[in-house]
Amino acid sequence: MKQLEDRIKKDGKVLSGNILKVDSFFNHMVDVELLDEMASEVYSVYKDRNITKVLTIETSGIPLAVLVAKQFNVPLIYANKTDAFNLEGDTYNAFVHSFTKKTEYHVRVVKDYISKEDNVLIVDDFLAEGASTCGLLDIVEQSGANLEAVVIGIEKTFQKGGKYLRESGIDVLSLAKIKSLKNGQIEFE
Amino acid sequence: MKQLEDRIKKDGKVLSGNILKVDSFFNHMVDVELLDEMASEVYSVYKDRNITKVLTIETSGIPLAVLVAKQFNVPLIYANKTDAFNLEGDTYNAFVHSFTKKTEYHVRVVKDYISKEDNVLIVDDFLAEGASTCGLLDIVEQSGANLEAVVIGIEKTFQKGGKYLRESGIDVLSLAKIKSLKNGQIEFE
Repeated sequence: MKQLEDRIKKDGKVLSGNILKVDSFFNHMVDVELLDEMASEVYSVYKDRNITKVLTIETSGIPLAVLVAKQFNVPLIYANKTDAFNLEGDTYNAFVHSFTKKTEYHVRVVKDYISKEDNVLIVDDFLAEGASTCGLLDIVEQSGANLEAVVIGIEKTFQKGGKYLRESGIDVLSLAKIKSLKNGQIEFE
Repeated sequence: MKQLEDRIKKDGKVLSGNILKVDSFFNHMVDVELLDEMASEVYSVYKDRNITKVLTIETSGIPLAVLVAKQFNVPLIYANKTDAFNLEGDTYNAFVHSFTKKTEYHVRVVKDYISKEDNVLIVDDFLAEGASTCGLLDIVEQSGANLEAVVIGIEKTFQKGGKYLRESGIDVLSLAKIKSLKNGQIEFE
């Protein structure tokens, strides 16, 4: 999506360790108008696919996911991060190993809110190694719902998450695809 | 706001310790259509007040704050929770003692994103003792920005946060005001 790529070129900052800092418009401070344009683009692609729920993960996935859910006029669910498995059995639980932040955590979704009747769109802000996305996939699978597609704001295609998801037969829509951040330069696909 | 009160009556659950569980439409699973009606109500009250930024705190304040920011067509900033003060000096930091969760944490906002030229609307999902709201107030004060008002989804008026804020001369708009959760019954003002 050209508008997003232009904004990344203008305001994105490349930090060491292949980190793209976009906290002036995408994380932390959020350009809601730009994100709503992104949500509108997502709607134009999936509007005929009978989406019933949008699923994301706290925190930074929420702004885009709210606006996507509004386009489809369906509920948004954000999976909660927790330190430990919930043993009460009333939630779907998945384990996430974050390569970027070198942390491990669990995510959970209350079972009442996703069922096998649902047709789910997963929305997240970034796709790199795919750790958090795989946690959400695990939850959708446990629920028996159909996964319609995975929607990503910014994908780093030089990391392996997107390749893994597509090779698994999953429909992945990334609104900006970055193929390199070498030498502080942002190169798009 | 009647629509919100009706929904709380229908789907809210009272747990021990004066906890109101609204995770089927407000936290965790989010009825985006209802929240957009709430945002629209907020816009109708403050549309002539030249709001330049909406400020909230991660995580559960974000959905309502995104939709409010969209109504005003201004950026949303969500303060990040952290375990420790950032000593680099590039962020405003505040300390929050959560009575509900019996935890303490810091919140921070990058200094570049709020300045004394801003006219800020603070938006949060709940107001009880007012701990997280006071953290956001502290950040606005450090930035030198003008605080226009504090907007709350659900206020528990039997706890002291709202009284304290109003006695400090702050304009507080709460879309639902709960005066009692005694004996598992939800009573509105």
